[in-house]
Amino acid sequence: MAEKRPIITLLTDFGLSDYFVAAMKGVILNINRGVELVDISHAVPPQDVLHAAFLLKSVYAYFPSDTIHVVVVDPSIGTQRRAILASSEKGFFIAPDNGVLSGIYEEVGVGEIREITADHYFLKPRTGTFDGRDVFAPVAAWLSKGVSLSSFGDFISDYKKLDFPAPLPIQEGVLKCKILSVDHFGNLISNLGCEQFKEYLDASEKRRFAFRVGEHTVSKLLQAYAEGEPDEVFAILGSSGLVEFSVKGGSAAALTRVGIGSDVLFKVI
Amino acid sequence: MAEKRPIITLLTDFGLSDYFVAAMKGVILNINRGVELVDISHAVPPQDVLHAAFLLKSVYAYFPSDTIHVVVVDPSIGTQRRAILASSEKGFFIAPDNGVLSGIYEEVGVGEIREITADHYFLKPRTGTFDGRDVFAPVAAWLSKGVSLSSFGDFISDYKKLDFPAPLPIQEGVLKCKILSVDHFGNLISNLGCEQFKEYLDASEKRRFAFRVGEHTVSKLLQAYAEGEPDEVFAILGSSGLVEFSVKGGSAAALTRVGIGSDVLFKVI
Amino acid sequence: MAEKRPIITLLTDFGLSDYFVAAMKGVILNINRGVELVDISHAVPPQDVLHAAFLLKSVYAYFPSDTIHVVVVDPSIGTQRRAILASSEKGFFIAPDNGVLSGIYEEVGVGEIREITADHYFLKPRTGTFDGRDVFAPVAAWLSKGVSLSSFGDFISDYKKLDFPAPLPIQEGVLKCKILSVDHFGNLISNLGCEQFKEYLDASEKRRFAFRVGEHTVSKLLQAYAEGEPDEVFAILGSSGLVEFSVKGGSAAALTRVGIGSDVLFKVI
Repeated sequence: MAEKRPIITLLTDFGLSDYFVAAMKGVILNINRGVELVDISHAVPPQDVLHAAFLLKSVYAYFPSDTIHVVVVDPSIGTQRRAILASSEKGFFIAPDNGVLSGIYEEVGVGEIREITADHYFLKPRTGTFDGRDVFAPVAAWLSKGVSLSSFGDFISDYKKLDFPAPLPIQEGVLKCKILSVDHFGNLISNLGCEQFKEYLDASEKRRFAFRVGEHTVSKLLQAYAEGEPDEVFAILGSSGLVEFSVKGGSAAALTRVGIGSDVLFKVI
Repeated sequence: MAEKRPIITLLTDFGLSDYFVAAMKGVILNINRGVELVDISHAVPPQDVLHAAFLLKSVYAYFPSDTIHVVVVDPSIGTQRRAILASSEKGFFIAPDNGVLSGIYEEVGVGEIREITADHYFLKPRTGTFDGRDVFAPVAAWLSKGVSLSSFGDFISDYKKLDFPAPLPIQEGVLKCKILSVDHFGNLISNLGCEQFKEYLDASEKRRFAFRVGEHTVSKLLQAYAEGEPDEVFAILGSSGLVEFSVKGGSAAALTRVGIGSDVLFKVI
Repeated sequence: MAEKRPIITLLTDFGLSDYFVAAMKGVILNINRGVELVDISHAVPPQDVLHAAFLLKSVYAYFPSDTIHVVVVDPSIGTQRRAILASSEKGFFIAPDNGVLSGIYEEVGVGEIREITADHYFLKPRTGTFDGRDVFAPVAAWLSKGVSLSSFGDFISDYKKLDFPAPLPIQEGVLKCKILSVDHFGNLISNLGCEQFKEYLDASEKRRFAFRVGEHTVSKLLQAYAEGEPDEVFAILGSSGLVEFSVKGGSAAALTRVGIGSDVLFKVI
């Protein structure tokens, strides 16, 4: 990494009102003052492992491929759950072994996930209630300083993996989809990939479609948010590669009263 | 820029709960790892172009004069609205051409605003719903790496400019003012400049004044918030050069139930 | 500080929706572009000096010992309250003299607190309503550039010190404690130190205890949040060295309706 400042990103459910995130940054800078620290988000809903996995999956590929991503959403802190370090050609990932890295496992080659056992890299005393500060931050900092991957622990293969809900075919030409996320603007991000959406359309006769989103029927695909009519819910090919439902200048979530986990029926005609 | 780390600031309405801001930072660091990234704010009310213009106008002059400011409040994303790059002796500004740079145009010499057309600097594929990541971030990063201004596109003169509401004389010695902003403490920031306020006072006989703020009459100008009486609304010469209305240890917005866009009458006696 | 980038942290009650924090960062970078800026928190409740003191006390020791910590929670801005600079083997601290540094005074040797009087280091004009930008930021930046401590002003000994509320013995084996803070997860952080808790337990016959937290009796000490039963309030030895009250996967604050400043009775049996 000569000349190139190592980058460490932080993704947690710690919020920004306490000192938790800053304590992690202090620990990192105390070990390696030369790093660039970047916040992904600290507003993951408390203990929502799958949502953190979704955010990480959506963003990591935009960072340099030697970036160290630290993810701390950790409902089992203090128990026997393991700490893991995954390495790949797209980056390094440090997290509790609770599935929070599920979004990136498809990118990681077999056998490149290690359990972090080398506790001489941990803060002493390790309090047992704040591994973000005591374990994950110092491990990331030592890794950024050039400590070898193998120093932190051995390979494991039985790491925990969560499945993102996939669209479910329930009839010919009909998929039951789910809302994965609601963004800051109230856009509803579904689990239907833009490519899968296009394939279904291509295979249909009239190339027409309808989504059932709450009480709304959505049959228009727009290229730009600004093309919508007032209070009209439309579909759009979202920037994370998933079909979204949106309202021009407003919140689709508020208008449809649909939220995370809601079902959305998709039908081609 | 030898020796001096380039600075890129980000001002958006993206919030901090999604991965949007982090994606922009990843794209920038992937192109130029040597930059210093500074957040201005990501809490601009969704699609409130004029509020972002106000924040930018209030803050840019405190940064080094070669800072690159990226502003993404972009209700017309995906349409034909242009992307622009403004350069001045006080900094560089990259934004959609929707008036969000209006606050700095008075500082920028004639002919120094360019349309960004060199799409080989953009992320591929450009999704059409996230130009912050796909267009504005990479252009800022390439500019910070030393790519010349002229490489990004040609000068334009018909860029969009919004007017901040100005105090309106409605009678001899009476101005109709507006609340431009409400800050985190509930201070009401008016559009009446401190200098203009003083000129009006100097021109009046008794050097007394009254503001009508909601149901409250404000006739006291204090030097410090702490000088106020409990539940008393007073005027103060704000740090951004505008007259503000405040309450000691409380929120003037909550007490007066006045908000952004409200009229405030100003009269000298 | 050769080779080592100086670190400046910021802890304020400014929130993140205005340009206030960014203005401080711009001023600092304009004086010393080579610093690393770290946010502690900007979500201190408005003008809550003691809460900022608590956050600072909880976090500063994790940073390198030459870090410059700037704390701006400043209800008396614009009055004759002094600006101070404290130096210690654990860091430098710049703040208004209102007690906000109380949490670190026990670490600082006698005679190492100075009044900041050298106003040629301040921004001109000093507006009187934003010393974070006009005074504290530039002083921190000049200090980070190597300006000597003595250049900023002379020692003072009559600086303001606030007392954190201490547990109060009210009977043999009974302490009246207080809730100092409620964190993002709804954990209730008491003012009872983990060491003091253990000493009381060790001195008791049965090594059993009971806390009265709102309407709840807490008599279980757990090692991990995940060990709790649903809707059960338990005690845990918190990561800041204080006894906390928590609920597995939920908010103890919401469940008990107890908040900052509430009394909690502690009894050993």
